[in-house]
Amino acid sequence: MNLPTCREDALELDGLDEIAHLRDRFILPEGIIYLDGNSLGPLPAATPERLGRVISEEWGADLIRGWEGRGWMELSGRVAGAIAPLIGARPEEVAVADSTSLNLFKLLAAGLGLRPGRRVILTERESFPTDLYMAHGLAEMLGTEVSVRVVDRGELSEALTDEVAVLSLTHVDFRTGEMHDLEARTAEAHAAGAVVLWDLAHSAGAVPLALDASAVDLAVGCGYKYLNGGPGAPAFAFVASCHHSRLRSPLWGWMGHARPFDFSTAYAPAEGARRLMVGTPPILALAALECGVESLAGVSGERLRAKSVALTELFIALVERDCAECGLGLASPVQPSRRGSQVSLSHPRAAAIVAELMARGVVADHRPPDLLRFGFAPAYVRFADVWDAVAALRKVARGMRG
Amino acid sequence: MNLPTCREDALELDGLDEIAHLRDRFILPEGIIYLDGNSLGPLPAATPERLGRVISEEWGADLIRGWEGRGWMELSGRVAGAIAPLIGARPEEVAVADSTSLNLFKLLAAGLGLRPGRRVILTERESFPTDLYMAHGLAEMLGTEVSVRVVDRGELSEALTDEVAVLSLTHVDFRTGEMHDLEARTAEAHAAGAVVLWDLAHSAGAVPLALDASAVDLAVGCGYKYLNGGPGAPAFAFVASCHHSRLRSPLWGWMGHARPFDFSTAYAPAEGARRLMVGTPPILALAALECGVESLAGVSGERLRAKSVALTELFIALVERDCAECGLGLASPVQPSRRGSQVSLSHPRAAAIVAELMARGVVADHRPPDLLRFGFAPAYVRFADVWDAVAALRKVARGMRG
Repeated sequence: MNLPTCREDALELDGLDEIAHLRDRFILPEGIIYLDGNSLGPLPAATPERLGRVISEEWGADLIRGWEGRGWMELSGRVAGAIAPLIGARPEEVAVADSTSLNLFKLLAAGLGLRPGRRVILTERESFPTDLYMAHGLAEMLGTEVSVRVVDRGELSEALTDEVAVLSLTHVDFRTGEMHDLEARTAEAHAAGAVVLWDLAHSAGAVPLALDASAVDLAVGCGYKYLNGGPGAPAFAFVASCHHSRLRSPLWGWMGHARPFDFSTAYAPAEGARRLMVGTPPILALAALECGVESLAGVSGERLRAKSVALTELFIALVERDCAECGLGLASPVQPSRRGSQVSLSHPRAAAIVAELMARGVVADHRPPDLLRFGFAPAYVRFADVWDAVAALRKVARGMRG
Repeated sequence: MNLPTCREDALELDGLDEIAHLRDRFILPEGIIYLDGNSLGPLPAATPERLGRVISEEWGADLIRGWEGRGWMELSGRVAGAIAPLIGARPEEVAVADSTSLNLFKLLAAGLGLRPGRRVILTERESFPTDLYMAHGLAEMLGTEVSVRVVDRGELSEALTDEVAVLSLTHVDFRTGEMHDLEARTAEAHAAGAVVLWDLAHSAGAVPLALDASAVDLAVGCGYKYLNGGPGAPAFAFVASCHHSRLRSPLWGWMGHARPFDFSTAYAPAEGARRLMVGTPPILALAALECGVESLAGVSGERLRAKSVALTELFIALVERDCAECGLGLASPVQPSRRGSQVSLSHPRAAAIVAELMARGVVADHRPPDLLRFGFAPAYVRFADVWDAVAALRKVARGMRG
């Protein structure tokens, strides 16, 4: 790619973009360059009408009968089935329920159960904080027999001893965008006799995943980032088929029961990943998530990824060329295969720069202490947006020396 | 009350009902008599517009900035503050998060932590099944040291030994509507040195509750029944202030962290009940729940309860008088103070009768094996509805001998 020398060059790239039309599936406000879809995906065009119907025609008109007549009981499973191809899984391996954190808790506990005799959860300091908290909370509850081993990334291989039951990792680092080699880490865990649990919050919907082909055991992911399900959307959980017969989540909710409406006093887990459901499914939120997942339908993960890489490569190259004097450092890996769909830059006045960019309509994130985080969701971010964002960044950062 | 002898008498009772106007706060379909608000509350009139705004104006237009600019971070706490007076609690004692089942898990575990040395969860066979499942799942995870003691109601007092850490009870029985004496049971638990955990799913919003005055330790409740939050609405959890300093939930989510956006690797629980939050709050669902809770605003619990009792008393009296030959039995307590806001009848062909009532526009529930369940939400059920429902029941049940 020749680096664009003017905005028209960037527009030309958009003209050549074969998935540019996906942007029409979203409602994006005028005058905003949205580089924060990795925090919260934008509103899919289908969502307002769909939610209006679910609220007024389904709930309002059908009331309790919606559970059967409107397919509410199957909605969670339907959304799980729509997420499955995005992560390279079979529908019965995916459940949509609760939050990423809660699903992590279920699968950390279930993972310990899959490796009886081993009592260590191994994870790394760079994990998303809530992933660490959930592991520590679980270990505190289980008492002295279970421990959480938190190490630096470089120490992971060495720490994978025969005491480790679960290797729990965040696939894409929320700060730097650095991406693990999921297949290699999974194989390494297996070689050490452990199961692996991946947090896909920052990859599902933006990075092609092949969980079955990669022999992943367990995974969780987020509905409101690249899946565009709305603020606080339900999350998903993945359990490989080979573990279904032995999988025990400690959260025995009635919706994970094999026959919830028998109202039996004895618990009998449902088949497959569905046993990870707990309480009554949140229908409004699930309908919104279904619209969000559908906004990625019909386009291959490889095509999304190719555009994501082109966007981040362009951003990095333009920042290097045009913002050389701004005191910005690249905090993400240079090699695209080691990056998710985001680029992070460092600057001592990161918070002020992000605020000033926001005032100019460029929406990015500040992550303490010194990171500026730019997310490039390939479904709706344009090459011209990258151009405009770098132009704004240059103006803002020039005035803010550390 | 003189028993109405014709429909006009029932209409007269509606004319005298001082809270009849509350019905205008809901959208109820024409031709439907809705006696199932204890399964799913109806659509509040304010919800469609509110959700439309949250979706299009907040999420759609403000994107990630909604968390600060639209008060999303405070929404859960605001709804908790609105629920607090309905249950006789202080705002900081209530959290709105996740599902009733999950909140039960958190508080069962927390309750064990409040009584170190005691390792028994005591509950009764009549509990809502998911309440039993969650307790058993917790105990299985904790291993041999914790056990769940499930007894018949009549054996509860005797079973309250000095091994019991938590007495966990469903306030209103979902099958029969039988209501525990919450204050007496709480006092009994305290006398035995246990903490009490109430599941208020079938009482919050319909039965006046005074959790603080009754010295209740812990409670959970449902957002989609009498609080009208929509199918699968978020639930609430209550923790008495006296336990705040020692309360440990095992589910250490980032939203229950004292400073979630510090992204610290070390967990530090937030103040009060807020530490029971786990993942990112579900904004669409919370906005709908706020509308649901607001639909009960400005009316005292005592007034709602008085109407609820009048409705259930009328229903029972009319069934006794007009359906005497139908083979129906009263499965709810005769004494109104021992009933929630529902009346259950028994009949060997309960399922068929409920289906036939549904076909005639009277929406009630079947609970296996032989119960017909009629819920009387005082905010929108009319005395004329009771009359019409009994008239329909008589016609249907006469044709269905067991």
